[in-house]
Amino acid sequence: MATPVPFDSFLETYRTMADLSAASAALHWDQETHMPPRAASGRAEQIATVDSLVHRMATSTEYATVLTELEGMLGNGALETWQKRAVKEAVRAQRRAAKLPEEFVHELSKTQSLSQHAWKQAREAADFSMFADTLAKLVELKRREAAYLGEGCENLYDALIDDFEPGMTVAQLRPVFERLKSGTRLLLDRVRDAGAKPDKSFWLSRFEAERQLAFATNLVGQLGFSFESGRVDLSTHPFCTSFGVDDVRLTTRIRENEPAACIFGLIHEAGHGMYEQGFDRAYVRTPVGQAISMGIHESQSLFWENMIGRGEPFWNWAFPRLAEAFPENMRGRSPRDMYRAVNVMEPSFIRVEADELTYNLHIVMRFEIEEALINGTMEASEIPVEWNKRMEQYLGVVPPNDALGALQDVHWSFGLFGYFPSYTLGKLYAAMFHNQMAREIPDLDGVIARGEFAVVLSWLREKIHRWGRLKSADELVRDVCGRPLTETDFLEYISRKIDSVYR
Amino acid sequence: MATPVPFDSFLETYRTMADLSAASAALHWDQETHMPPRAASGRAEQIATVDSLVHRMATSTEYATVLTELEGMLGNGALETWQKRAVKEAVRAQRRAAKLPEEFVHELSKTQSLSQHAWKQAREAADFSMFADTLAKLVELKRREAAYLGEGCENLYDALIDDFEPGMTVAQLRPVFERLKSGTRLLLDRVRDAGAKPDKSFWLSRFEAERQLAFATNLVGQLGFSFESGRVDLSTHPFCTSFGVDDVRLTTRIRENEPAACIFGLIHEAGHGMYEQGFDRAYVRTPVGQAISMGIHESQSLFWENMIGRGEPFWNWAFPRLAEAFPENMRGRSPRDMYRAVNVMEPSFIRVEADELTYNLHIVMRFEIEEALINGTMEASEIPVEWNKRMEQYLGVVPPNDALGALQDVHWSFGLFGYFPSYTLGKLYAAMFHNQMAREIPDLDGVIARGEFAVVLSWLREKIHRWGRLKSADELVRDVCGRPLTETDFLEYISRKIDSVYR
Repeated sequence: MATPVPFDSFLETYRTMADLSAASAALHWDQETHMPPRAASGRAEQIATVDSLVHRMATSTEYATVLTELEGMLGNGALETWQKRAVKEAVRAQRRAAKLPEEFVHELSKTQSLSQHAWKQAREAADFSMFADTLAKLVELKRREAAYLGEGCENLYDALIDDFEPGMTVAQLRPVFERLKSGTRLLLDRVRDAGAKPDKSFWLSRFEAERQLAFATNLVGQLGFSFESGRVDLSTHPFCTSFGVDDVRLTTRIRENEPAACIFGLIHEAGHGMYEQGFDRAYVRTPVGQAISMGIHESQSLFWENMIGRGEPFWNWAFPRLAEAFPENMRGRSPRDMYRAVNVMEPSFIRVEADELTYNLHIVMRFEIEEALINGTMEASEIPVEWNKRMEQYLGVVPPNDALGALQDVHWSFGLFGYFPSYTLGKLYAAMFHNQMAREIPDLDGVIARGEFAVVLSWLREKIHRWGRLKSADELVRDVCGRPLTETDFLEYISRKIDSVYR
Repeated sequence: MATPVPFDSFLETYRTMADLSAASAALHWDQETHMPPRAASGRAEQIATVDSLVHRMATSTEYATVLTELEGMLGNGALETWQKRAVKEAVRAQRRAAKLPEEFVHELSKTQSLSQHAWKQAREAADFSMFADTLAKLVELKRREAAYLGEGCENLYDALIDDFEPGMTVAQLRPVFERLKSGTRLLLDRVRDAGAKPDKSFWLSRFEAERQLAFATNLVGQLGFSFESGRVDLSTHPFCTSFGVDDVRLTTRIRENEPAACIFGLIHEAGHGMYEQGFDRAYVRTPVGQAISMGIHESQSLFWENMIGRGEPFWNWAFPRLAEAFPENMRGRSPRDMYRAVNVMEPSFIRVEADELTYNLHIVMRFEIEEALINGTMEASEIPVEWNKRMEQYLGVVPPNDALGALQDVHWSFGLFGYFPSYTLGKLYAAMFHNQMAREIPDLDGVIARGEFAVVLSWLREKIHRWGRLKSADELVRDVCGRPLTETDFLEYISRKIDSVYR
């Protein structure tokens, strides 16, 4: 079947946008990893130029016209299945972008740039009031954005979540998060009652920096991250970015007295990276050759970091290797000591340092605050009070200042409202996938303990990675697990882990 | 004075092209330094997309229209001096590009891509016949290009030289090159008659790789290359690229038994880099904030590599530092031993490995061959015979095969005809600048021997770097030296060096 002319024309434009976006990503990556200090302002101009070209193409009349033409062909049999999917994805993105007036986009982008600085200052001074006005302005802009985008939404906040989790709604999330919250608080009580805490002192001693990086890099290679199609560098905050299915860049950081930052950081990013390396090469530079949602993306990083990397079978395999790299640190320790040390659970102030159990409570409270902010039932000025109230209620601890409280996350200063739920969705999906994998791969624990990670990766490739955007997140989860999103797999998983670590 | 509207509109387009070109340069740099192996084909697409966007903007009707409007303002006092210069530079580039029909550009670019492979194969097999047809095709395309561009040129080859040396012609170059050729051959006789060759055995022993890189990197920092505005990486072939005046990237390579590759390679690239870091920041992202010609660019790299780095005063300063980094290699040696070891002069087959004296003969013969090819007085198939004839006549050696002869350079396979003269122009300009500097800086040798390189760099910044394209190469050289291009400074310089090294 010949490809219809409008589809070819659409693809040509799309490929140009994809290549420019890759160039922008490369400029960002370089900025975080290699760029000399004085290059910052020139780089900002370069990125702005490339991004605005993409924006201009994505919102051009020509592009809208060809998409409208293709939409008319969705029902007449002219397009193959994947092409229809590509058109739907492109139409969806184009309609979203077209709903935002150009002045609004400009104002939002300008406010976001200025917010960075205000947020950093406020966090350094641990003084929310220094960020309050800027945040109020951002909330107001985000309310306007939700109003522009939210036509037909039951809840305005849905319009923002939709950017990261297409199709996901507050109505779906709220009951799941409520059950997760109460389930987690029961489990927290169980941990508290267990008494003795695992010893992690040996895991917080000095691990030589270069050997940390060598160990972590080698490790993710063994898990299945391809260095033929990717690489590892250092940056202040770990991240994963992709310039294409065969060019995936991971970063990590090194803290001499906290090897988890480097090692688990890199396992996490490699989980993202293996997802990016796993898209079907037939759909490269098309709207279907990419991640379906941030929640699914996070499910892959968290699967490797937690389901694999914080599991006992993994440490049965990895411990001798770690002990070989760091004999002085590991002397007298066992795989089980490591397993317990990396699974200490206790309430804390900082989300990114939280353990698997308490982490979701940090997310649920942000979800509640964002939902109230966007719907106008909470004002930005009320955030610190609302924050600390929930910290006390859910986690039983109250941050001594705003730097350890409402100012800790970078997200809001970037205008990222609606993103937080993806982190917990990732945890829930990962637990569901892990459960399903254990049903389908005989002796999964043995497979992991023998380091046969190719078996694990093949399963993920086949069931999840290769699909890209050919299925929605909901379709994917139902196809893989036979069930829609649920919190029960995660709660059972973490409950078993508590018993095993704290027994 | 308010900036005229068309100039603002022109600058906006120009800046977008400059930012896109910087993005393309960054993608190239990454390709040579960090890119994982399987990313090659995706990267080629990205670069092609960005480059073709720039090409499309540069040849658009809108851009031509605004330039024509600005040209009309050159005489009416509406533009400042630098703005007039910017307009002239932009018009010049635009007219050049507009003269080439799009089908021709496409055919040339396709042929160039395919030529790479054929050239590599032929060079590996040391068999010119494997490259002959491709080269004949390239020569034919380059003749056509010269015909498109060469309206009003006295010599068709001028049209190609002009791309790298605006305004330079065969009529100007030929007499200079002729005198340089005969002068060099006389000096070669003097070297031959001198008898004893300096000992360079100790300079060809094993120097530990990481220490080579650390030494060279530290060294170029001391010469004045700014690491606030640049960095150093490794690549197969050393190069310098710039994404802006505050983002200049150098690369070098390491050969364990030939430290000159890393050390002189990096000094050379740092010379390019300091030029790029030295443009007046007022003209960033305008046509005047960049190198005026490849010959002037080369003059800066060669000034630092040869006038400084292969001079005796430099080694009086650098020797103790090298001996500290490599005590075992330098034991029992003196600064003078080093000076002599890095200045051995003798005929050889490979241009890039040639010494300062014989190098220009390699260039002059390429100039003669290219001139004949473009004007149709030589055919591509005759190259090997013509090559070897000149090698024998000028250098007294005949390459045993084409890999060491006519196939050695990458340039022709890239379609780079007209570039070679820039290398020798760089040598001649560097010697002229060095002479002038010695007149203006009291005790220049002492300044260098004390490592006061800031004095040297300030002179270059003030006299050369900051001007960018505000002056033509010819104007620049006349302003700095009070004389136009001449080969005499170089011949005197190298003659003195022969006496000093071979005495």
